Parts: sequence; structure tokens; C-alpha cells
Amino acid sequence: MMKRVLIANRGEIAVRVIRACKELGIETVAVFSEADHDALHVQLADEAYCIGPVSSADSYLNKANIMSLATQTGVDGIHPGYGFLAENADFAEMCEQCNITFIGPSAWAISQMGTKDVARTTMEKAGVPVIPGSDGIIIDEEDGVKIAEDIGYPVIIKATAGGGGKGIRVARDEEELRKGISVTQKEAKANFGNPGLYLEKYIEDFRHVEIQVLGDSYGNAIHLGERDCSVQRRLQKLVEESPSPALTPEIRAKMGEASVQAAKAVDYQGAGTIEYIFDHTTNEFYFMEMNTRIQVEHPVTEMVTGVDLIKEQLLVASGEKLTYTQDEITFQGWSMECRINAENPEKDFMPSPGRIPMYLPPGGFGVRVDSAMYPGYMITPYYDSMIAKLITFGRTRDEAIAKMKRALDEFMIEGVDTTISFHRHLMDHEVFAGGDFNTNFLDEHKVIPASHQ
Amino acid sequence: MMKRVLIANRGEIAVRVIRACKELGIETVAVFSEADHDALHVQLADEAYCIGPVSSADSYLNKANIMSLATQTGVDGIHPGYGFLAENADFAEMCEQCNITFIGPSAWAISQMGTKDVARTTMEKAGVPVIPGSDGIIIDEEDGVKIAEDIGYPVIIKATAGGGGKGIRVARDEEELRKGISVTQKEAKANFGNPGLYLEKYIEDFRHVEIQVLGDSYGNAIHLGERDCSVQRRLQKLVEESPSPALTPEIRAKMGEASVQAAKAVDYQGAGTIEYIFDHTTNEFYFMEMNTRIQVEHPVTEMVTGVDLIKEQLLVASGEKLTYTQDEITFQGWSMECRINAENPEKDFMPSPGRIPMYLPPGGFGVRVDSAMYPGYMITPYYDSMIAKLITFGRTRDEAIAKMKRALDEFMIEGVDTTISFHRHLMDHEVFAGGDFNTNFLDEHKVIPASHQ
Repeated sequence: MMKRVLIANRGEIAVRVIRACKELGIETVAVFSEADHDALHVQLADEAYCIGPVSSADSYLNKANIMSLATQTGVDGIHPGYGFLAENADFAEMCEQCNITFIGPSAWAISQMGTKDVARTTMEKAGVPVIPGSDGIIIDEEDGVKIAEDIGYPVIIKATAGGGGKGIRVARDEEELRKGISVTQKEAKANFGNPGLYLEKYIEDFRHVEIQVLGDSYGNAIHLGERDCSVQRRLQKLVEESPSPALTPEIRAKMGEASVQAAKAVDYQGAGTIEYIFDHTTNEFYFMEMNTRIQVEHPVTEMVTGVDLIKEQLLVASGEKLTYTQDEITFQGWSMECRINAENPEKDFMPSPGRIPMYLPPGGFGVRVDSAMYPGYMITPYYDSMIAKLITFGRTRDEAIAKMKRALDEFMIEGVDTTISFHRHLMDHEVFAGGDFNTNFLDEHKVIPASHQ
Repeated sequence: MMKRVLIANRGEIAVRVIRACKELGIETVAVFSEADHDALHVQLADEAYCIGPVSSADSYLNKANIMSLATQTGVDGIHPGYGFLAENADFAEMCEQCNITFIGPSAWAISQMGTKDVARTTMEKAGVPVIPGSDGIIIDEEDGVKIAEDIGYPVIIKATAGGGGKGIRVARDEEELRKGISVTQKEAKANFGNPGLYLEKYIEDFRHVEIQVLGDSYGNAIHLGERDCSVQRRLQKLVEESPSPALTPEIRAKMGEASVQAAKAVDYQGAGTIEYIFDHTTNEFYFMEMNTRIQVEHPVTEMVTGVDLIKEQLLVASGEKLTYTQDEITFQGWSMECRINAENPEKDFMPSPGRIPMYLPPGGFGVRVDSAMYPGYMITPYYDSMIAKLITFGRTRDEAIAKMKRALDEFMIEGVDTTISFHRHLMDHEVFAGGDFNTNFLDEHKVIPASHQ
């Protein structure tokens, strides 16, 4: 078992990983930028070191500094969290070379899934339908325009290394495409250190359904059911739930089995997610992408299965077998997650940094909060605006929603604007309550005031 | 279904009941003493009214004021929480007369179980062994001395209306008994409005194991397994868990069945608990008492069964059937609760009131906090010193303990002394970790420094 782990991340996911390490008796080494010396993950870790200035590129994406610190502090492994270096095959490769365990899949598996044409081929072999798109990374703007003409507009531009709603953009004509390629490329380079982009036919009206998988180094792979992430604003997930209100047991089994085959095809180790475009009207699903990391929305899967995904990552990376077989995975109840962002939903979700003199998360039965906030914390403008994940669990979807409403009502955050009011409004929306909606739900139903879109 | 409920309590249990009401769409009316105008339950309820001065006798025990308010505010029911008026048959009777639902068993059932000799007879009929004691309330000191001589010292003095570690005292000789009767009588009168005491043979070395029951007005009764509350200091529970490390499936089934029969014998409605003295060496169990209310430690049962006990209380009181049959109650994993008190464990657990400028409960997977604290709250010296219940859930007892350790480490409460350090120390104790201990564990093993006892 690993004895000492460096967490190459910040915010709630760094806290989440530290918690799992502590429960397993693993020592933790945190890293922080100059903007984060007061951060909660710094306080909770056994040790913490500054790795660079405010800019992500110079700190949380600074591979050399992080590797150097990992070597100096004698850690056995590095947990990358999500975003930053989580799906950076070069970094995973560096870890392998330095004989430090990258807590995630192999560099090879990351790059297989990050290289779109390889991922498509792998998925096709596993029996998963794929949607039309570029066979691999686009070479340049002109190449992108040519491919878009072949597959037809609208298209979606995606950064190879993207995730968390960043590095993704829809284009409905050539002008939007040219502009989108340029902007997305810059964004991807700044956020993920990788400017590679690919294109896909953009399907307008679908549910976003994804399957959680776990694999180990003994060739075992299992799935943990689905998450429905159809509540999105500008391709950014806002609410996730498990199970999906749209899936039948048959479709769930089919998607699960295909996902396990896909994971096995790349000798997948650790936690990963296969994202699907799901057509509710025909029950057809198409491979969208595989995320070779833990995801923001992983807690809803933990709540309905009882499986601690971060602990499984740590165990698998330590060379252990998965704790569970497929037969031992059972599903109970319903879980929902609202991403609470420091943003003003009345002003086009404009980020709202600032000090929070008052912070009190809701508590009680069936309520879980994953956050790195505390009273007096200063939310800086430099990083992701997500400040807390509010997760509820109930016997039924209605109970999970009822718990979410009361928990949102209780949540006290003073000093900044937050999306709590937006979520509270959404929970009361009859279409959301009915469970029958697609990814364009928020735009179509004007849950966000139209004047501010 | 009830539409509007008055919560005749304060602190975490008032918050707990308000949460359940909100999730069921029930309006809430809170009450508060002059010391509690800034309390969280006052902030979270739909309405809140002052019912009297600081003294409990004049506020939270003021039946006339509470009934008058209940009538004026047009509530359908009153939830008494635990302590205060929760097991006051007179108050339940007043509710019945005013046509307001007392959310608990009938006044008759309360008084049956509050009258020791009747309770004993009922239990004997249900097939539960009882221990020697006074047949009913002792008349006066002399009566007590006579009974104690009959059954033999040590004896335990208990207030009929006691609970939560108050109104209970051990006497090892006549002198201690005389003193104990006088002191306990005063304490019982002040805290519960009922000076009645009874005596029992005090068994020194046992586990405290209790069975949770639920009944409805259609004659259905079920049990939800046991809680082990053997970690006690001076008869006050400090840590509770479910399941008990000491019970076999056979004993669990036997205790559960006996408890269901006992509940049925008094047409029990709502949530109740049968407490047992359990002799680990012989697997024998003896009836201790029935608590005709929700208990402080109810969350550990909720965590392992998934059943929301407060919602079941509210549903049953509304005339609904129990949501579950016995067959539908299943047990998963392990749950543990630490009572966090504002007390100094280094100074004989002396209460430590004061303002808490900083308060941050732990979060994440498998951690639940039931509390009425918030940053800036002023903990007054007037009421119970319990300020939070920290509950963890894991696949195994070891995981529940590991989660408790990391959650205790995370818990930030500044400005007062708390029992967090005591619990953290206890969680590391090898005897506690082994699970093989009795109610005298804390004294025997010097978990609390001997010099301070």
C-alpha cells in the first residue's frame, strides 16, 4: 500500500483526496500556488509546499516543479484530481520515468483516449456506436473548416485535454468555426497545456449520460452505473444525478457492458468515465468521449453504490485488486449534485470572487457537502468558480429533490454571489421535476432569465 | 398529512425535526426562550415565537405557554424532540384534549412505560427478562432505603422522566442512596418537571444495547436493529454505534422480536427504543427501560437502515401507515456517532460555554453532522452542553472509525473547549478499536486521565 501521496491539485478535489488518504492511513503532501497559501487543502494535508505563482501554467500545471517536489518529499504516488494535469499523458509518463506512481491510468491509456481517432476505433471495437467527426486532431483552421463541411454544421469543437466545461465550443457556420478554433485553442493551451482540438457533429437534442468504470492491474474492470448530466449551461454541467430518469434497466446493462469492454480494451486502471450522447426518443446512445480521471460529479455514484471511488483509485494504484466484483455492485436510492459556483446567475453567471465572512454548509440525513470553503476564506478570481458540491441522497428522485431544496435553503454563504438561488429555482421547475429533458433544457425553458443570457 | 407542526424543543433536535418537516412540505413553528433568540432552529423555521425566560421550567417546559401558542398558530401537531416534554404524559394528554396531535405515542403508552411496574409487567408478558428493582415509583427516601436493602447494593436511582444521562445516579451504600435520592429528585424536577424516581439493581459490567422500534395506528410494529451505547461516562452516553460489535444474528433477531412484541403490547405509535442490559459473556439480555421518544443517537440507525425516523414519526402521527414492513428493513455497513460537547475533558468535563467565532463541520463521503451551531454562535450555559453529533458511515466498523478520526481532525470549533480531543483519543484506543468492552470501559481503561476523574 502507498504510504505517502502528493496531491497535484487544489480546491474541493484536493480536500476530497486528502480525506480518502487519511482514512487509508496515507500521508499527504499538498501543493499550492502563491494565491492559495490560506486554502483548506493546505491546512488539512500533513505537509504543504508552494509550487509557483498565481498563474496555473506556472504552478498547478508546472510539471517540473511538481515532479521535483515529489522526488524531494519522497512520495510514492501523485494524485492529479481533475483538470490541470489529470489527463496529461506527458505528466503520467514523467511519473513513470521517475518511479512515482501516477494515480490514474497508464500514460498510454490516457493518450489512447486523448487521441480521438484511436478512442473512436477502440469504442467501435467494443461495440459502441460513434458519431461523425474528425479522425484525430485537426491540423489547423483550414483542416477544421474542411472537416466541418464534410460532416455538416453545427459542429462541436473540443480540446483533447479539455474537461469541466472548458475547451469546448459549438460552431453553426464557418465564421463561428474559425473564431471558435482560435479561441478554444488558446483556452486549451492556457488551461490544460495542450492546444489540440477535434471536431464532432453537434447533436442538438440529447441527454448527457455517462458510465463510471473502475479497472485494476489484474485485468478486472467493472461499471458503477450511470450519471445523468443533462442540466448544462453552455456545455458546462450544473446538476448531475444517478440513476438517470431516462434509462431502462436494459439500456443501463447494455451501456455498462459496452463501457466495461472499452475499459478492458485499454487495460484501464483506476477510475474513468465513458460519456455518451443518449437519444431518449430512440434509446440509442453514441460514444462522446472517455475521461481518464475522477470526475467532479463522482459523488452521486458513490452515494447510490456505496463505493468510495477515490479509495479504489488509491488501492488500484497501490497494486491492489478492485474491492468489488461486478456482482457486488448494487444500486440503492437516488442521488443528486448541485455545483455551487461563486457566480451571479442574474448577471450571466459572472464570476463573483471575494471574502466570505460567513460560511455554513447544510447538514443532516442524506446531505453531503464536498467543499474547500471556510468562514473568512477569500475566493480568488484566478481559478475555477466552483466553491462547493452539494449532494443529496433519498429513496426516490422526489426525496433527493426535496432534500436538495431544504439544503439549498439552509446553505449560508455571505460576501459573494452564488448559484444557490439558480439551483433553488431549478429544483422547483416542473420540467426538471418531471425528469424529461435534454441538454438544451436550460435554454429552452428560460430557467435562466432570457434577458441575461 | 399534517400541514403545520410546532417543534417544542431547541438545539440540534429542533433543527433535525425542522429539516424533516421541510422535506415533507410541512410548515414549521419554532419556540425559543429568551436565551435562544439567535438560535439556528429559530432561523430555519418558517415562524418562531418566544415562550418564556431562560429557565427551562418557564419556557421549554412551560406546557401552558406552548399549548396556547400551538392553538394560536393553528398547528396540526407538536413534535417534542427528546428531553423537555418528550415523555410527559400530561402534556401528551393536553394535546389530545386540544385536538392537536402529539407526535409520539399516546399519553397512555407514555405513562405505561413511564410507570416502572407496569413497564416491567408488559415486558415480562412480551417474553423479555427484567432485573430486580422497585415495583413502581419509590414513595420517599425511607421507602428507597428499604427497597435497596431488599435487592442489595449497588443500586441505580433513575428518574421516571429522565433521559440523556440526566436524572440517573448509582448508589453503593445507604449514605450514597439517601444523598442520591435527594439530588436526583431535584434534578428530575428541574429538568423534566417530574420528581418521580425508581430503583433497580445496578449491574456493574454489561453492554448497553437498545432496539429501535416503530409503530403505527394500524397495529403494525417493526424493529430497526440495535444500537450499542456502551461508551458511557457516569451513565451518560458518549459514543453510539450500529450494529453492536457484540451481537450475533440470533440474539439480534431475539431482541428485535421481543421488542416488537413489547411495542405492540402498548399499541405503540411512532418511534421508540427498548434499552437492554446485555451480558456479553452469557448472551443474556434484560429490559432496562423503554424510551417513548426519538433518541439522541437515532442517526446511526438511519445510516445503516436508510430509514428516516423523524419522517416516519411525522407520517405515523398524520395517520399514515409505516412506510416499511419488517422484511423491507435491511442493514448495510456500520455507523458510529460521537457526541461533541462544549466541555473540557481535561477538567472533569466541565461545561465550557462561550462564543464560537469559528465553526466548520467536517464534510465529504460518509460523514453526517447534526448540529445547531454556526460561526459566531454564543453557546449559553443554560442548557445541554451537546453542541454537535458527528456521525460516520463505512462498509465496516474499521472504516467507520477511520472516517470518525479524520472527521474529528477536521472539525473546527474555536472559542470553547470541546470533547473532540477526547473522542479522537478514544478512537485510537486499542480496546475501543477491538470492540470488546462494557459500560465501565472508560473508567477501567483510564481513557479519561485519572487525575481529572
